[in-house]
Amino acid sequence: MFPNHSRPLVTAPAETAILTLLLAESPLSRVELARRTGLSSTAVTKAARPLIDDGYLHELPPERTAPGAGRPVNPLAVTPDREFVVGVKISADTLYGAVCDLRAHMRTTASRPLGDRDPAAVCGLLADLVAELLDAKPEYRARTRHLGIAVSGDVDRPCGRVRYSALPNWHDVPLADSLAAATGLSVTLENDVKAITAAEHWFGEGIGTEYFALVTIGAGIGSGIVINGELVAGAYGVAGEMGHISIDPAGPRCHCGQVGCVEAIASSDAVLAAIRRATDDPDLDFDGAVQLARGGNPAAQGVFARAGHAIGVGIATLVNLVGPERVVVTGEGLDTYDLFGMHIRDAYEAHCFKAAAKCPLTLRPLPWEEWARGAAVVGIQALFP
Amino acid sequence: MFPNHSRPLVTAPAETAILTLLLAESPLSRVELARRTGLSSTAVTKAARPLIDDGYLHELPPERTAPGAGRPVNPLAVTPDREFVVGVKISADTLYGAVCDLRAHMRTTASRPLGDRDPAAVCGLLADLVAELLDAKPEYRARTRHLGIAVSGDVDRPCGRVRYSALPNWHDVPLADSLAAATGLSVTLENDVKAITAAEHWFGEGIGTEYFALVTIGAGIGSGIVINGELVAGAYGVAGEMGHISIDPAGPRCHCGQVGCVEAIASSDAVLAAIRRATDDPDLDFDGAVQLARGGNPAAQGVFARAGHAIGVGIATLVNLVGPERVVVTGEGLDTYDLFGMHIRDAYEAHCFKAAAKCPLTLRPLPWEEWARGAAVVGIQALFP
Repeated sequence: MFPNHSRPLVTAPAETAILTLLLAESPLSRVELARRTGLSSTAVTKAARPLIDDGYLHELPPERTAPGAGRPVNPLAVTPDREFVVGVKISADTLYGAVCDLRAHMRTTASRPLGDRDPAAVCGLLADLVAELLDAKPEYRARTRHLGIAVSGDVDRPCGRVRYSALPNWHDVPLADSLAAATGLSVTLENDVKAITAAEHWFGEGIGTEYFALVTIGAGIGSGIVINGELVAGAYGVAGEMGHISIDPAGPRCHCGQVGCVEAIASSDAVLAAIRRATDDPDLDFDGAVQLARGGNPAAQGVFARAGHAIGVGIATLVNLVGPERVVVTGEGLDTYDLFGMHIRDAYEAHCFKAAAKCPLTLRPLPWEEWARGAAVVGIQALFP
Repeated sequence: MFPNHSRPLVTAPAETAILTLLLAESPLSRVELARRTGLSSTAVTKAARPLIDDGYLHELPPERTAPGAGRPVNPLAVTPDREFVVGVKISADTLYGAVCDLRAHMRTTASRPLGDRDPAAVCGLLADLVAELLDAKPEYRARTRHLGIAVSGDVDRPCGRVRYSALPNWHDVPLADSLAAATGLSVTLENDVKAITAAEHWFGEGIGTEYFALVTIGAGIGSGIVINGELVAGAYGVAGEMGHISIDPAGPRCHCGQVGCVEAIASSDAVLAAIRRATDDPDLDFDGAVQLARGGNPAAQGVFARAGHAIGVGIATLVNLVGPERVVVTGEGLDTYDLFGMHIRDAYEAHCFKAAAKCPLTLRPLPWEEWARGAAVVGIQALFP
């Protein structure tokens, strides 16, 4: 159909501006594109031309908004299947993969249980998973150049290295180079929470916001933050560590070494440990703890309430410091939202400072496959140099 | 010497890029300017030309770095007295003013005690102060177009309005328009902590950093945050409220309505109130409380230690969330740094998450005049559209 160019997809700021808008919001009229980007309509037409020639954009049939409103206009839209991107999330025990189109719609998914967590073994398994995904349809293999990988922990995106990840217990693994050699694709690594924040910012609740945050709750607690339209990376690679802000000097000790961290009070492990202590039942599992709370056990309910309060204070702290327009709350912790959601909202509203309280919280349950989609969005972003 | 143009000083991104670098770091060679801005040396020369013609930049005598190192180069430098900017900080009881040159050096300062705090009265007094400052030298009046104003509280910079300020107790005051009419200058308003953060980012410890924060301690506790080179404003105008993050559910109630805010534990009023309670001396003043602590009174020392701990936890929280390259600590609270500085540093280091601990804290005592300089820097920024 179209050749796979080795040159970057976009080379000028104007092309980047209109393509990013169209990825999220196709179709848009040229007038709307000019208004939103601040470009002249001539500049919009000039920037769109090579993207149309390469098949990334197409023109829709002309629409005339009102009689006498001037010459008809052809809205522009992304051609989603012009190129595909593979995303893989590496979790503690499973690889989750997806093929996405340019608008980040998942076309196919697959997963593999993780056995050996040695980097070389994981790299081999990941290459197998990518091959399986690309073999699902000939067009996937023909039109895929980029692979995005999401992994928890400290990830050096520019260098393509996992500096540290607790879940597979890796230290300084140059994963991008190994995977590029194993798959033949161009590889971008990102921290998993940042990846899903990017997905939600470009293609979800965060579309069009300059200040945005996403909070994940569950086994870990963290956040991704967007300021002035860009993901906050931190000068030393640390940012968004909402799980490790200390909100109670009388709180429990955290695995990070500090006392009273949000994660030490509100992670699923912390909740389970507290309910085991409160009920004097060291063999209780998390499902059992949830059943106790749902059944009305006051001690178990109190632990969930305290966890919800901690999360609400943590989100309010983030909001008071960086002022997002909206916050999305997600993660597997939402499965027990009935037990602590009210406490999250109450503490959040009580602790927001003045106008910061205007920032709404939105719940967004994300199945595991969505984390693979987040990884794919990192690959889509790699189209932009 | 040169005409005062009504056109903007810079009109192209390349001009902005080289002028901002030169404001902070004159002189710089064209090679260095090209390297730092990513522009070609032709583009540097082209962008510098109108600024040289208008007298904002000048060329220094050629320097030849080494024999045979090519043709000699003329480094470029800002001409600081090409234009002056007035800055005024409105505090609870005084107006502090300064005339600064383009490199934010204070040329002259003046102040006025605030009597009536009615906006119209303050506006009149402020116009008198500006007139006094401009009358100090004929060149100030001839070459000043911009006035920057710094005031505490909720300031709408784009609209030039004070939405709320506790110190003069103002609600929704359109101060920029009133002052422009009273002074004939172009007026920019900014929150005082944000103003001094901008000054420190452009002309102080923050030069060249993409991630930077400034924390003020004293009667109030707050912060200014720079991410990806830009001051964080917050989607709803609230950001950097480090004083109102809750770090202890068993802590004292704050004037904002919440419990355990950093400001409720560590502001100078909170420290005084706690020492009065601890010593059962309701008539003690702040100086007396400081003397007690310096004299070894354990109760008074304990209150300062607790305040230092709260500030350290607050700064660590900020650092864990946004990852600055460095943090400057300032404000009149530094006067008692001997009493709580160690506790600030200990709590900060203990609560930073992993690599975030690489972020150094720098102390920067700022006399009141420096707040006027911060206001002037807001005026200098107004040179850039």
